Amino acid sequence: MSILAVGSIAFDTIATPAGHAENVLGGAATYFSLAASYFTKVRVVAVVGEDFTAEHENVLKKRGVDTRGIERAKGKTFRWGGKYIENLNEAKTDFTELNVFENFHPRIPAEYQDSEFLFLGNIHPTLQATVRRGLRAVRFTGGDTMNFWIQGTPEELGETLKLVNILMINDGEAKMLARETNLPRAAQKVLAMGPQALVIKHGEYGATIFFRDGAFGAGRHPFRAPALPIDEVKDPTGAGDSFGGGFMGYIASQPELNREVLKRALFYGGVMGSFAVERFGTERLQSLTREQIDARFAIFRELTHLE
Amino acid sequence: MSILAVGSIAFDTIATPAGHAENVLGGAATYFSLAASYFTKVRVVAVVGEDFTAEHENVLKKRGVDTRGIERAKGKTFRWGGKYIENLNEAKTDFTELNVFENFHPRIPAEYQDSEFLFLGNIHPTLQATVRRGLRAVRFTGGDTMNFWIQGTPEELGETLKLVNILMINDGEAKMLARETNLPRAAQKVLAMGPQALVIKHGEYGATIFFRDGAFGAGRHPFRAPALPIDEVKDPTGAGDSFGGGFMGYIASQPELNREVLKRALFYGGVMGSFAVERFGTERLQSLTREQIDARFAIFRELTHLE
Repeated sequence: MSILAVGSIAFDTIATPAGHAENVLGGAATYFSLAASYFTKVRVVAVVGEDFTAEHENVLKKRGVDTRGIERAKGKTFRWGGKYIENLNEAKTDFTELNVFENFHPRIPAEYQDSEFLFLGNIHPTLQATVRRGLRAVRFTGGDTMNFWIQGTPEELGETLKLVNILMINDGEAKMLARETNLPRAAQKVLAMGPQALVIKHGEYGATIFFRDGAFGAGRHPFRAPALPIDEVKDPTGAGDSFGGGFMGYIASQPELNREVLKRALFYGGVMGSFAVERFGTERLQSLTREQIDARFAIFRELTHLE
Repeated sequence: MSILAVGSIAFDTIATPAGHAENVLGGAATYFSLAASYFTKVRVVAVVGEDFTAEHENVLKKRGVDTRGIERAKGKTFRWGGKYIENLNEAKTDFTELNVFENFHPRIPAEYQDSEFLFLGNIHPTLQATVRRGLRAVRFTGGDTMNFWIQGTPEELGETLKLVNILMINDGEAKMLARETNLPRAAQKVLAMGPQALVIKHGEYGATIFFRDGAFGAGRHPFRAPALPIDEVKDPTGAGDSFGGGFMGYIASQPELNREVLKRALFYGGVMGSFAVERFGTERLQSLTREQIDARFAIFRELTHLE
């Protein structure tokens, strides 16, 4: 099944203890699409500026991503600069230039109307809701958000959460959204806002999925997938979005959606995140094979598997 | 097999979002011994003051812990006060009164000389080394340490690490000890200092065990046990020491020491840590059954188990 991904395409300038990179292709939609492309067909809706070249687009096209939904606007593409110093789990932002992204109003090409899976990247919750409502064929929606919307547009976000099947956020965002410091209790409060399941991303410690009672035939217990301890973390940028791409890509590739599928999807999410951080930008995600991905899946499984 | 545990007994004054407790029995040796007592016989070596009553001692005795190694000194027992505010993973210390613990020189009763398993709690590394060297029958030593010794007595700690089979510390301590912010690389550096394996405790995210090449018949990959997301964290004090007690207690209860045993031990460590935090002080650890422990072990296993 095709996934439609809506979100940012950006040029990132990144410094980490392992080196630095300038104006490399990034953005949530880019990482998500590349990661998901190893599992299923991906369609992307985003906006770029005049500095986005055919070469940049080819990074996506080579992975079979349908780029007809990338709108070209006058001006520059979204740019972000940040560094990771001591803590590879958290970037210190140097600059954010929204550029053409500031006025992004996602337009869905007619050819995308039959999409059954939708990923709503981190944009204004009202835009997320509009996209979702405009797509009749969608039967599963994954969504992301961030502190900026949790604090700034809580009501709009509340409306969007009712339209999302699985929300994927990190520990800090979950606690802020629920106004609750205990993670499992925060998860229950977020689930009460609408989603059937909540994926909380723990960075280098993996991710946990919490289920609403009865959702996906799930029992009452959450499920946790570890992240592989990686010797060479070159650049953590995009790890969370690559996680999302692996997670949703695997789901979209399966004939059924049940608890077992979601468990394996959580592991595949971790696998794609672990590849993403091994090189700067999207480099590692451009040239993987499904065999490499499945080999790492087996290692992740072994990492916590008791006979 | 009997485990000999050397470490602190303390009275703790604790405040958490769930409430507070004053002068409750605590200390690393106490949590460790109670947790380990569900798996094997435990002997404890510690020092207490005149304020340590028969009632306090009975908490340990009721769990079958051999308390003949508890020395009574003139003065007061070690006291610690702290609070957990936003972050349940980290205490803010209000006061530390070492009292009789300041001059603690562990004396091993003759009846303990045949101990084959030794846990060296967080005391001066030279004292740890002296205890280890004085025990001829020991064939497996687990050790703990903390930032204070890592920074203050690095050479003495280096000597002790050569005598320890498995070191159990947290993320921050491992990174400080190795002077390395990447966790897997930090782990390799710590292993090069002596231990055959290193357990890194991640608080609410579980723990990872890293192996020296070939140690315990282990492959090159680490192993990770998750912690169960706990709805009701009343008091995180002693979670790490309870983890250690479950981990070493299980190891000591097994006829062989190999990778599979260490994997299950890591899960049992998480189980005991998860019980400890459900009540203030040692309350929860005083009245468990092995059935309850194994039921939670099964939940932990399910938490990350893929078919």
